[in-house]
Amino acid sequence: MKLQKLLCLGFSGSELEDIYWQELDALAEKRVIGELADNTDADGLLVKLGAKVLEETIDQLPSLKYIGMLGTGYGGIDAAYAASKGITVTNIADYATEGVAEFTFGILLEHIRAIAHAKGQAKNEDYSDNFSGTEIKGKKFGVIGLGNIGLRTAELAQAFGADVNYWSKNRKDDAEAKGIKYSEIDELLSGSDIITINLALNPETDGFLNPQRIESIKKGAIVINPSPMELLELQALKKSLNHDQFTFMLDHSDEVEADEIRQLAGLKQCIVYPPIAYLTAEASALKKRIYVDNVKNFLAGKPSNKVN
Amino acid sequence: MKLQKLLCLGFSGSELEDIYWQELDALAEKRVIGELADNTDADGLLVKLGAKVLEETIDQLPSLKYIGMLGTGYGGIDAAYAASKGITVTNIADYATEGVAEFTFGILLEHIRAIAHAKGQAKNEDYSDNFSGTEIKGKKFGVIGLGNIGLRTAELAQAFGADVNYWSKNRKDDAEAKGIKYSEIDELLSGSDIITINLALNPETDGFLNPQRIESIKKGAIVINPSPMELLELQALKKSLNHDQFTFMLDHSDEVEADEIRQLAGLKQCIVYPPIAYLTAEASALKKRIYVDNVKNFLAGKPSNKVN
Repeated sequence: MKLQKLLCLGFSGSELEDIYWQELDALAEKRVIGELADNTDADGLLVKLGAKVLEETIDQLPSLKYIGMLGTGYGGIDAAYAASKGITVTNIADYATEGVAEFTFGILLEHIRAIAHAKGQAKNEDYSDNFSGTEIKGKKFGVIGLGNIGLRTAELAQAFGADVNYWSKNRKDDAEAKGIKYSEIDELLSGSDIITINLALNPETDGFLNPQRIESIKKGAIVINPSPMELLELQALKKSLNHDQFTFMLDHSDEVEADEIRQLAGLKQCIVYPPIAYLTAEASALKKRIYVDNVKNFLAGKPSNKVN
Repeated sequence: MKLQKLLCLGFSGSELEDIYWQELDALAEKRVIGELADNTDADGLLVKLGAKVLEETIDQLPSLKYIGMLGTGYGGIDAAYAASKGITVTNIADYATEGVAEFTFGILLEHIRAIAHAKGQAKNEDYSDNFSGTEIKGKKFGVIGLGNIGLRTAELAQAFGADVNYWSKNRKDDAEAKGIKYSEIDELLSGSDIITINLALNPETDGFLNPQRIESIKKGAIVINPSPMELLELQALKKSLNHDQFTFMLDHSDEVEADEIRQLAGLKQCIVYPPIAYLTAEASALKKRIYVDNVKNFLAGKPSNKVN
């Protein structure tokens, strides 16, 4: 089966390499990069992160059967309304698991071994500083949220010889069988030397690290957040960092206000990174591969990454 | 059994914390930080890295039974002559295995994810750069020398999901049982995306990476050397780096000439770090613990880390 008309909305063409466009061309009688008004007969729709596809838009496309999101977040798509019209919505999940987990250990090691500073000193032929780092081995390592990235982070922490604990909404037997121990959230926060926050953002997790939880974080801990900043209450975080309670590292998403980031970056105990944890050549290639495969699988009657 | 007189030669007293000095005090009737000429009756001798204890010195200490080196290298001690006089020489091995292996992944991730650069950009609120890193997962990872540090490096590379191969003078069945594959040195050099050099320096390994071997390293590879630079022929290395053949990272020891380091640091493809790979609080504590335990074990008739 083929799509009749695949509309790529908000695309410039540079989002995918030729090889992927060619594959998509083979899956539709016609493929256009264009506007909605000119293509109301489209039965397939490809959109990019941040795109709005609400009831009104869906109603303008009476033949629509498929919406593919080039990314993980699909908050701009009314997936429930789409479902009520028999339209399949897909996203791309888990393409950057490895990239984010590796980045987490990269910035952790940078911090505990002063790698950027050491590199700069050597460049200036300045060998006067005394360096004394610490090791991941033997540390209490707490992972909040044991989804794909959290689990991979926990596995790597174990490989480094850390004592790894997790908190997650649901217990994970497979992880526990590997020695990744379940802990109540309060004990995890007060007992861990290193904490990573790997929760997905949803109404239930919004503000999950509330003032009381932030205050309970172990003095001197290192907290790494490669997840949305909405998981933490910012005022409480700033207060704790102002008191040198712990070190906080974030790979902030574009959704954080520039002013908030500036305030955080100004705190000695806060290390800000650009939103690059998920940016690897491997993740980028996998993302595009999944995007095209989602269309293929939908047409073959075995939809993948269906979210509605 | 106790020592009669333990002479600490070349010490200032700040090398060990009180707790260790107290333990040593309990192992000798008398302990002095002092000069050789004033203490020729010493039966125990503690020295620091770089100390010279040759035939002449040993002959001045007719009661000597024990020499303890505060470090791994004991090239300045005539251990064979000491043995001929029935004197036990000990050193401290393997205290920094974890620290060096973790540092190796720290500087590797720094490089492939541009972490120092990203940190600097975020600090300057400059988000204009496009970042695209690569992952350790899936890379061909070659370890040269499978001693303690090499093995730990190989294990961590495996945990990251790399395809790990090793070359070592002797085959290591235990490592191979874990999936760390043996490779001939030439294939390892030409086939690996990431290479770590973990050989000890001795007459056999001096210049091990000769011009022919350096030339065979895969184009675009990353080579990390946390071991002595004498393992490589510097002129050949500089020539290859000048031609952008591969990226070379070193944690140079103090033994490399400042001028050589300056020349290497000037090459775009060469990233120099101060000699800090082994500097962690954990390694430092372990080193002192072993130093004191070596004396204890010698007196108990079960010498540890005996090198002669």
